[in-house]
Amino acid sequence: MNIDKLYESVSAKGHVCVGLDTSIEYVPELERKKAVNDAEAVLAFNKALIDATFDTAACFKVQIAYYEEMGLCGLKAYSETLKYIKQKGCLSIADIKRGDIADTASRYVKAHFSGEFEADFVTISPYMGMDSIDPWLKEAQKTGKGAFVLMRTSNPGMKDFQKLRLTAEDTEENNSSSRLYNIVGNKMQNLAISNTGKHGYGIFGVVVGCTEREEAADIRKSYSSLFFLIPGYGAQGGAAADVALLLNRGNGGVVNASRSIITAWKTEKIENADNKAAADAAKRAAVKMRDEIRESLNEQ
Amino acid sequence: MNIDKLYESVSAKGHVCVGLDTSIEYVPELERKKAVNDAEAVLAFNKALIDATFDTAACFKVQIAYYEEMGLCGLKAYSETLKYIKQKGCLSIADIKRGDIADTASRYVKAHFSGEFEADFVTISPYMGMDSIDPWLKEAQKTGKGAFVLMRTSNPGMKDFQKLRLTAEDTEENNSSSRLYNIVGNKMQNLAISNTGKHGYGIFGVVVGCTEREEAADIRKSYSSLFFLIPGYGAQGGAAADVALLLNRGNGGVVNASRSIITAWKTEKIENADNKAAADAAKRAAVKMRDEIRESLNEQ
Repeated sequence: MNIDKLYESVSAKGHVCVGLDTSIEYVPELERKKAVNDAEAVLAFNKALIDATFDTAACFKVQIAYYEEMGLCGLKAYSETLKYIKQKGCLSIADIKRGDIADTASRYVKAHFSGEFEADFVTISPYMGMDSIDPWLKEAQKTGKGAFVLMRTSNPGMKDFQKLRLTAEDTEENNSSSRLYNIVGNKMQNLAISNTGKHGYGIFGVVVGCTEREEAADIRKSYSSLFFLIPGYGAQGGAAADVALLLNRGNGGVVNASRSIITAWKTEKIENADNKAAADAAKRAAVKMRDEIRESLNEQ
Repeated sequence: MNIDKLYESVSAKGHVCVGLDTSIEYVPELERKKAVNDAEAVLAFNKALIDATFDTAACFKVQIAYYEEMGLCGLKAYSETLKYIKQKGCLSIADIKRGDIADTASRYVKAHFSGEFEADFVTISPYMGMDSIDPWLKEAQKTGKGAFVLMRTSNPGMKDFQKLRLTAEDTEENNSSSRLYNIVGNKMQNLAISNTGKHGYGIFGVVVGCTEREEAADIRKSYSSLFFLIPGYGAQGGAAADVALLLNRGNGGVVNASRSIITAWKTEKIENADNKAAADAAKRAAVKMRDEIRESLNEQ
């Protein structure tokens, strides 16, 4: 079961999820010139990053938008990136945020839980309701795959819908909390109770950003059976201390960082960088992040 | 502006949006055997369907999940289908339901408003908030592209989140209605007021299913500036009379039907069908649907 593998990976390697949201602008110019096209350059860069960070990263998250942007060649690079992560013995999260009616969802399930775009986990958007999540769950029960459903995201627009409060008539079935993201969380927690891995987490987790500190401890407490995919670290403003509030006895979550890791060579102002130099810088950034989170946990 | 073109297309050709949710099982066996692979078979079938229905269809909606399911070859067929729709002088809706934070959304914008996957309209999922819609809108203001944001969908799971009521504190800014889908609709209506085409509709519309009759007239009245993409007709249970309630003086919406049109050759039990025979059956189904909707409007 992938959720158990992820738990064990966190125990062994720490909480860092390296986000391969790889835009061509992030690839060193030297390497861009060598490559046949942008997609090939991105793939070679990704491979260097994976080589350098696979023993520090709990998992890799690949944001498909950056590959769709490059068209068919980009999606080939996306596919090859996922295969390379697997080849290295690591876990992949396909950040696809799909969400559609059941018939259509089952097509997405086939697309992303098998074949050329196969990943260990996917992300799912819940707006259309639980019947848009069911086909993923049914397949996951058979194959051990996993998913993270968007609950409370890290962007400012999170307030527009996710944070709205619901009236009592609609929240009777739920616990004291009553924001839209709680309703999503409650339903996922219910699902988790009957679909639990050996370390106590549901086979499907949720996305909870680390950018809203005041609610973090409550959320962690309310959803103790849910593993968290935590965005918002670094560039979006979340710090290690914020992350620590969302973890559970040192586990129960992975923290995504993309730009702060994969463009670390720019932050370090490395001149004439090649992929090797960029990947070494990424490794240093990932190790630093891993250690900062561990220290915050020790200070708790 | 594409929303104006769509309005004019509805005036000229009626309300039918032909949904190319083309699974390989929908392609006549005779044609499957001829094709190099499933994706090529689907593409040839799509072209025959487009040839037969382009003068009856207000637009075509292409559901990307069915193409992602077939991997890279499938996405090539998706790209070629969109190009063929354009070549025929018709409007395309890419049913992609993407929704992500601003930086990522701008990658999706580039992927689906230009390049190999360029479409005239896209569908967007609003869960992450208005900053996930902004990048699409900014590009649309420059290029005339359009989008439909999920508001109240046609699946049973719609009740899980979209239909929940919100408390007064969060709905002060809004009109009397207070379900989550109303909040989405209100925000889209506000956007429409400052981004209106020459026929009075906002450049971005919303998805409103025709499967919940009791609220239809209210929704149409509350969101008079919004053009509706209407799913749920036929296989999902919506009838022409339900659709009529969601239209506005004979325009203001397109009604999607996929299986009832593209598998009409199966419903008609045509033996040894080829693409031509299947496309002719699709044409008959599309004409019948168009006329049923027109009659319902006359009876109103």
